[in-house]
Amino acid sequence: MNTVSITDTTASDATVAMADRAMKMMRRLFPLCRSITGDGLRQTLRILAETVPQMQMIEIPSGTQVFDWTIPREWAIRDAYLADASGMRIVDFQKSNLHVVGYSVPVDRSMSFDELQQHLHSLPRLPDAIPYRTSYYKENWGFCMTQKQRDLLDPHATYHAFIDSELFCGSLSIGEARLPGDSGHEYLISTYCCHPSLANDNLSGPVVTALLYSQLAKRKLRHSYRFVFVPETIGAIAYCALYPEEVRGMTGGFVVTSCGGPGPIGMKESFVGDHLVDRAVRLALRDAGITPVIYPFVPDGSDERQYSSPGFRLPVTTISKDKYYEYDYYHTSLDNLDFVRGESLAGSIQLYLNAIEILENNRIVISLNPNCEAQLGRRGLYPQTGGALNPTKEEHGIIKNEVDVITWVLFLADGQQDLLSISERSGIPFPHVVAVTRKLHQHGLLEYIQDNAFE
Amino acid sequence: MNTVSITDTTASDATVAMADRAMKMMRRLFPLCRSITGDGLRQTLRILAETVPQMQMIEIPSGTQVFDWTIPREWAIRDAYLADASGMRIVDFQKSNLHVVGYSVPVDRSMSFDELQQHLHSLPRLPDAIPYRTSYYKENWGFCMTQKQRDLLDPHATYHAFIDSELFCGSLSIGEARLPGDSGHEYLISTYCCHPSLANDNLSGPVVTALLYSQLAKRKLRHSYRFVFVPETIGAIAYCALYPEEVRGMTGGFVVTSCGGPGPIGMKESFVGDHLVDRAVRLALRDAGITPVIYPFVPDGSDERQYSSPGFRLPVTTISKDKYYEYDYYHTSLDNLDFVRGESLAGSIQLYLNAIEILENNRIVISLNPNCEAQLGRRGLYPQTGGALNPTKEEHGIIKNEVDVITWVLFLADGQQDLLSISERSGIPFPHVVAVTRKLHQHGLLEYIQDNAFE
Amino acid sequence: MNTVSITDTTASDATVAMADRAMKMMRRLFPLCRSITGDGLRQTLRILAETVPQMQMIEIPSGTQVFDWTIPREWAIRDAYLADASGMRIVDFQKSNLHVVGYSVPVDRSMSFDELQQHLHSLPRLPDAIPYRTSYYKENWGFCMTQKQRDLLDPHATYHAFIDSELFCGSLSIGEARLPGDSGHEYLISTYCCHPSLANDNLSGPVVTALLYSQLAKRKLRHSYRFVFVPETIGAIAYCALYPEEVRGMTGGFVVTSCGGPGPIGMKESFVGDHLVDRAVRLALRDAGITPVIYPFVPDGSDERQYSSPGFRLPVTTISKDKYYEYDYYHTSLDNLDFVRGESLAGSIQLYLNAIEILENNRIVISLNPNCEAQLGRRGLYPQTGGALNPTKEEHGIIKNEVDVITWVLFLADGQQDLLSISERSGIPFPHVVAVTRKLHQHGLLEYIQDNAFE
Repeated sequence: MNTVSITDTTASDATVAMADRAMKMMRRLFPLCRSITGDGLRQTLRILAETVPQMQMIEIPSGTQVFDWTIPREWAIRDAYLADASGMRIVDFQKSNLHVVGYSVPVDRSMSFDELQQHLHSLPRLPDAIPYRTSYYKENWGFCMTQKQRDLLDPHATYHAFIDSELFCGSLSIGEARLPGDSGHEYLISTYCCHPSLANDNLSGPVVTALLYSQLAKRKLRHSYRFVFVPETIGAIAYCALYPEEVRGMTGGFVVTSCGGPGPIGMKESFVGDHLVDRAVRLALRDAGITPVIYPFVPDGSDERQYSSPGFRLPVTTISKDKYYEYDYYHTSLDNLDFVRGESLAGSIQLYLNAIEILENNRIVISLNPNCEAQLGRRGLYPQTGGALNPTKEEHGIIKNEVDVITWVLFLADGQQDLLSISERSGIPFPHVVAVTRKLHQHGLLEYIQDNAFE
Repeated sequence: MNTVSITDTTASDATVAMADRAMKMMRRLFPLCRSITGDGLRQTLRILAETVPQMQMIEIPSGTQVFDWTIPREWAIRDAYLADASGMRIVDFQKSNLHVVGYSVPVDRSMSFDELQQHLHSLPRLPDAIPYRTSYYKENWGFCMTQKQRDLLDPHATYHAFIDSELFCGSLSIGEARLPGDSGHEYLISTYCCHPSLANDNLSGPVVTALLYSQLAKRKLRHSYRFVFVPETIGAIAYCALYPEEVRGMTGGFVVTSCGGPGPIGMKESFVGDHLVDRAVRLALRDAGITPVIYPFVPDGSDERQYSSPGFRLPVTTISKDKYYEYDYYHTSLDNLDFVRGESLAGSIQLYLNAIEILENNRIVISLNPNCEAQLGRRGLYPQTGGALNPTKEEHGIIKNEVDVITWVLFLADGQQDLLSISERSGIPFPHVVAVTRKLHQHGLLEYIQDNAFE
Repeated sequence: MNTVSITDTTASDATVAMADRAMKMMRRLFPLCRSITGDGLRQTLRILAETVPQMQMIEIPSGTQVFDWTIPREWAIRDAYLADASGMRIVDFQKSNLHVVGYSVPVDRSMSFDELQQHLHSLPRLPDAIPYRTSYYKENWGFCMTQKQRDLLDPHATYHAFIDSELFCGSLSIGEARLPGDSGHEYLISTYCCHPSLANDNLSGPVVTALLYSQLAKRKLRHSYRFVFVPETIGAIAYCALYPEEVRGMTGGFVVTSCGGPGPIGMKESFVGDHLVDRAVRLALRDAGITPVIYPFVPDGSDERQYSSPGFRLPVTTISKDKYYEYDYYHTSLDNLDFVRGESLAGSIQLYLNAIEILENNRIVISLNPNCEAQLGRRGLYPQTGGALNPTKEEHGIIKNEVDVITWVLFLADGQQDLLSISERSGIPFPHVVAVTRKLHQHGLLEYIQDNAFE
């Protein structure tokens, strides 16, 4: 069985190529007008399916009951603008899909400045940014504009609001793909793709998820991974309602979002805090030399709210680079293609891959030579002249040569501890623990418990 | 069912009124010559009974065996003085009851300065203070005086010691009142009232306890509360000996003492350290914005020594303001009515009330909508325009709006966590958690476990 | 039953005498050429046996299989030197036994400077030190020399290497002595004695172990102690292979090594970290006012690698003074009799004795007066005048008078806590806890659980 090769996170040709590939996908997907339903969402899923060829499309009809919620009508929008009395367009949907409040009902009439006010949204703190607003569950319409645009409006003038939209019985779209393994463990990798032209939150999520899929699909996997592309909240709820036993049966998961910004790397912990998925992510970060901003679990956030709810209690973590809520441009037109970076996206992919590699390679090990230490010398595993400190120690005063790794693994291999614990306790990078364990297995010094198909 | 209303600790008319009431009681009770038995104690209990009308008086005859102890003879004192050869009174019981060592046997004779020495007590470190001394279990007599008074004595003079006291077969007095609830849980609120004219330690204790009673008596209570007014040590032991099963059956308790000084608020932890009563007190303090001085449990202290002893192991905490042992004037005549403050007494009452309110309102809750989150919008519990950070967050970057509270409560309401835990974990003030939980209950979104008579 | 008397670690006549005795043993043993087998080891054991008269010698023949290892051939060496073409000895075994790589095979021939290089060992960082090197499990030979000596060699010259050694079927020697107690608990005290003229690591180990034996042998002991003197690694493995059930049946142990240097006192924790032996050592150090350098367990180190291996899992700690690996002169000729100090050796003996005293005196206690506190006054255990802070508190504000100790012990004596826990929690020195407990036992106030033969 081939397993994930040991990788690092230093910039390499592969990383640069991945960064380019990620940014190409970002640029292609960015302009689409996504919402929680509709053709923008569908087109997005279709483009992602080029990278995730096994993606199944699930369409859930409007009106379907999903737990406490009802699938809403589908939303379509063709054009929208706010014009002055002369017909000049002040804000124009064709220039930015953020100008229209998501799920706006149709409107086509003139009104006073005063009447218009309740339908306008702007951000005084960022006068050049168009805010992102929606009204999914209350019939309404509105325009979002920069504060500068808004300040130019004439309180005594009349304006024409035009939104050519439609709300109709259609369906909500979900994309799903599964990479099967035979360990009996399945992990969820969920992302949402319902935001219009917003780059970090949230286009980075589906792009990184799709590329993660493409990387894992090349490998034979021990565990199963279920990739889910949903509109946020309602989509995750619908997915849980469709597949409740599958979600409950999973071991853990990741919600991939806002991982392409220029800011610090963060980790949102699962509600458990020290679940296997938390420990895998923490170790991947430690081994990459990264001290992340830790976001302890709060039930506010993204779709972990659904997956971890009392009825499911699936532990879910998130690796972020400029986490939602935490950066100035969050949910504004400034969260655009200039804000995100290819190397951030590639770095996030690599960190998720490393965390998954930890899950893939984690085994409980048991020494076949439990009584005292093994004679490493006659197996060619020990320096032949004794007495000296090992060279690494003499130079650095730290533990990291192979004998130390061997000693730690064999000492802890009592049939109760797994490689993750051994890496945590010893401070030795997980890939080194795996490599040395494999060598010890080849020398007949230890055995894997539960599952011997390690190689 | 009416429950404790949500209160805060800011100065209000009610607080001012409570401070006045407390100080009035202090002034009336202060002059009485209390001891572990006798009429001073009985009069004190009778005055407290005006505030605690249901108070039962328990009289335990001298000579009664209570565990390892014997109820001592009753002590009465009519007059006492130390006079010089001219008959001039140097110290006079009529001026301060602290001048006589508690439980002094009668004396009426002249003696030399030298012989007198072993019967005198003064405090070099506080030359203006009369120390407080007792000799309950060894027949003795003595005078306490200021160091300044003592320094004026003439080593060559003869002095006349006169103490008109009596030790006789009488009884030890305990006051007891119980506020019943039907939860099956009972809490002990114990205070001691055996010190003569000493204000913070300990007159503040019985005054705050009586007023606490008067406040709780106005309300319908879920739990039962047993108020016990005893002479310290021997009284608590006698109470435990009279009602061993009752004490063992209680859930937790408070020993109310030294809570009226000008100094910092403190909390003495129970021997368990994180028992429900510790957590309730800690949360009441946290929600009031108070960082208390923490006194980890030591078996030295007050009557928790008895209630928490191996045979009973009742967890007991104390909220203090100038805790016994910790302030300069402790057990001296300077711990007088000038030392204590009405607002300190009122503040301590409020903190105890808030802690009890936490116990009263604490319930395990279970979501009736466990699968994914509830659709709050259609219940009018959610803002209708999505995308924006909630106003509080935009302004302060912190969690405190109602949606956040709702989300926390429903997320944690898995039938295993109580409101106390939810408040601790979320950082949301307990009264907010309670108010939101009530609202969610009204909307049919959650249920109380074990006891549905929440309102 | 006589128990260990309460001792302290201040310099006393006894300490000075012990320091002298230890240094005398050091000086006598230092010159011997020890290795993992051979007469140097045997002579060392014989000299130690003068202090440990009950020592049994165990000889294990070469070729014996011990778990994964084979007992090697015995090594004898009579002479060795490296000479220049003129016959002048450049390094000479007669001057220092460190000059020859341990287990060198015989050699007697001339060779070029270049050929010689691979057989030479020196330390550039310590140009005046001869390093210590061995080659137990690969046939080889070599010389160790100072860097200064090596720098004087002529690259164009020819040198004569002469080693008159022998490897033959002999045996490996182990010394063992046991002090029996009847508690059913046995502790291991293991040391290694296979290094040639090296003082701190490791001659301090066997010297301190032997003197520890001599001190404990004077006393009646509750637990059993098994003293084992082995060559490091192979000797400990052989011992475990000979007595596997005995080692598995022990409660805990100590590996005594590198405890005579001038540097800081350290403690290497057991793999458990908070086992009884860890807690006993930590408490002994705390009570001596020592904050040790803590070395968390690593499987690198000394014979705890064997005793704590998965097949045995015996928790083992080490008290060190200049721990192996941690000091500059480690495994060099500068770790000589000038480096170690008598008072360090005596101090280490005392700390081990104190830790053992904790194990010896540790009992679970149960109050015979569990309900409320005992009336100490009528037993003469309490000051007769109440009200005052106790004198110690008035002076120092800290707990340490006898009433406080009594109160702590009786409060915690619920039949579940032992004296070790009581000392840890109360902060009261263990010997005070023991002394007070004994007094309370005499007064009939508590009982020892499991074993009443405390006195």
